Amino acid sequence: MRDVYVIGIGITTFTRLEYPLVEIAAYAGLMALRDCGLKKVDHLYVANMGSGRVNNQTGLASAVVDHMSLTPAGAETIENGPASGASAIKQGYLAIASGMHDTTMVIGAERMREVNNLVATDFVATLTHPHAEYIYGVTLPSLAGMFTRLYMEKYGVTSRHLAMVAVKNHANALMNEFAHLHQPITLEGILDSPEAATNNPMVSDPLRFFDTCPISDGGACVILATKEVAEKIDKPKIKLAGIGQATDTHAVHDRVEPTDLLAVRGAAKQSFDMAGLKPADVDVAELHDAFTILEIVESEEVGFFKKGQGHIALEKGETQIGGKIPINPSGGLKAKGHPVGATGVAQAHEIVTQLRGEAGERQVKNAKVGFTCNFGGFGNNVVCLTFTREN
Amino acid sequence: MRDVYVIGIGITTFTRLEYPLVEIAAYAGLMALRDCGLKKVDHLYVANMGSGRVNNQTGLASAVVDHMSLTPAGAETIENGPASGASAIKQGYLAIASGMHDTTMVIGAERMREVNNLVATDFVATLTHPHAEYIYGVTLPSLAGMFTRLYMEKYGVTSRHLAMVAVKNHANALMNEFAHLHQPITLEGILDSPEAATNNPMVSDPLRFFDTCPISDGGACVILATKEVAEKIDKPKIKLAGIGQATDTHAVHDRVEPTDLLAVRGAAKQSFDMAGLKPADVDVAELHDAFTILEIVESEEVGFFKKGQGHIALEKGETQIGGKIPINPSGGLKAKGHPVGATGVAQAHEIVTQLRGEAGERQVKNAKVGFTCNFGGFGNNVVCLTFTREN
Repeated sequence: MRDVYVIGIGITTFTRLEYPLVEIAAYAGLMALRDCGLKKVDHLYVANMGSGRVNNQTGLASAVVDHMSLTPAGAETIENGPASGASAIKQGYLAIASGMHDTTMVIGAERMREVNNLVATDFVATLTHPHAEYIYGVTLPSLAGMFTRLYMEKYGVTSRHLAMVAVKNHANALMNEFAHLHQPITLEGILDSPEAATNNPMVSDPLRFFDTCPISDGGACVILATKEVAEKIDKPKIKLAGIGQATDTHAVHDRVEPTDLLAVRGAAKQSFDMAGLKPADVDVAELHDAFTILEIVESEEVGFFKKGQGHIALEKGETQIGGKIPINPSGGLKAKGHPVGATGVAQAHEIVTQLRGEAGERQVKNAKVGFTCNFGGFGNNVVCLTFTREN
Repeated sequence: MRDVYVIGIGITTFTRLEYPLVEIAAYAGLMALRDCGLKKVDHLYVANMGSGRVNNQTGLASAVVDHMSLTPAGAETIENGPASGASAIKQGYLAIASGMHDTTMVIGAERMREVNNLVATDFVATLTHPHAEYIYGVTLPSLAGMFTRLYMEKYGVTSRHLAMVAVKNHANALMNEFAHLHQPITLEGILDSPEAATNNPMVSDPLRFFDTCPISDGGACVILATKEVAEKIDKPKIKLAGIGQATDTHAVHDRVEPTDLLAVRGAAKQSFDMAGLKPADVDVAELHDAFTILEIVESEEVGFFKKGQGHIALEKGETQIGGKIPINPSGGLKAKGHPVGATGVAQAHEIVTQLRGEAGERQVKNAKVGFTCNFGGFGNNVVCLTFTREN
């Protein structure tokens, strides 16, 4: 396989965006072209989960490739639920690694706020098992609530630990101009004060309002290329060194031990093995904290901490910027936002920003190895990426 | 790039299917596993255009990989409108050609009849330009009607030529047990007799009822593998020798000459060039006849006939089984049916069946080179594949 590098990155603000989905995608793509100075790419992949349902639009990649004047380049839309972004990066990687193309653009984009919150929640619920979960009214918050309760009972995680994730990621997002939520929060305000019950109401017991990510619009882009192309770009050389992917039962209740996220474990191991690295080598990571509990559990399953010890490391500050392994310096899904199809690409955008040393106030010092975990379904299809800085 | 072979194929009947989309996909996949004797594959791609909108289901590939007990293999859904199938085959190819995987399963599946015909027509219309076409009420039959009128005026194609495509493809479908329409039709019955106006009413002037494909449910599968794996399978060795893809303007009216299908031309040329073959080398082809006019125009744009001469070749019987270049021996989209996400994979299924010599009554004699054209949007994103029999 040929080596593959990330040569360009672009992103939109994550928020409620009042312009069409095609424009959101194209904006992120144009920012990435500007970042690396290219004018054309050989192929386009667009990661998107819901445009057919939410935005009355199929063939999104064809619309974007035309709108960006990239025709006659080929284009496909890649869907893997909330892990669509990293799945699309994998396809972009394969197209170059194989020798078929020299440059691929991977855009993730989603416009979820075109519909109201209830419709958006139902849309996301369509990723659950159609016959064993969805038709009984399961939603992602409900699955996450049940999962969190089991985790609390088994491993001693408390509501205070969950809130610590939110406080950390909101603080990080304050330093990210593209983040959806620029709202400093404290344990006092969302947990300890008399007003906490009002500020932070229960959503899906034991998950409260600030344990869940917002519903966001947004787009992100990475441009991938061969080593030959990368060497002509005046940017630090960031290699996409490892890709891992694994699936698990589609219905959560089919798992022997529902608190084990085996797809996260498997995908992370593959990604590290391919890169020839270990979890301890990682300097900065973006994990998929659609719910606060997930950051804690993923930090264990990918191998940063032992199973059941993630919340202890969190307490000690090890996952903060400046800590042993900074997690979600971008603010994460929790505070940066979660336009589902864009998320995996946005995670890669943050890691490349960090490895280039372009992260400003939220820069993790001397970051040379970065890692992302993009969590599809409720852990049924997970893609992990490992990035390394070469110069 | 490593060479890639089609080692297994499977298909469901195309019709109205009363079982869920996941079952449709899994059935096609299981038939393909049975065909080649494998029990596992390294990765799954599912081509589907509308499950999020039509079937309340996203993350379809994750559901299928679980339902088929193929976990922890990775899986993605690939969407490129009605060309999703060939796009997914391209991804399956890249995953093997690159060295990442040794076997990939590519399933195309769609369940369009869960909704009524008007809703299905609106669903398909979501592939048009969101701001320049869809919002003004454009549908695929309306675009195809305007396109046909221009083509008739420019090249002398008549309603009789269109009807000849329908008669030929309905006749072919009678020999295909998996086809949706098993209905012999004649020029007398749909064009010349007094009853023709009733039998074959106008849908979108000048296109009549029998100029359009049915709305079908169905699934199809091909399993791709390295040469090493293919050599262990006791089947004729069918190589995926060429892949081409090209895009065109998303809105049809943006094209300098709307009767030119430049993406078909470009994709076909790339596919032939990659395979080191010419159009004249092709023994059997499946073209994307969602409307009868498209078979005629594609037969020109891919290079079988000169521009404007496709209807003359049709008149002479050159596209019939036994003719110079048999087109759509399966019955085509017109009579085999068009479950949109499945179509490109079903085209490959027919070509492999023909190249293996397993097509029974509809067998094209001594077929060694096969070709498919899968037409996304209204020609805005086209994927062409070239297959060769090696032994």
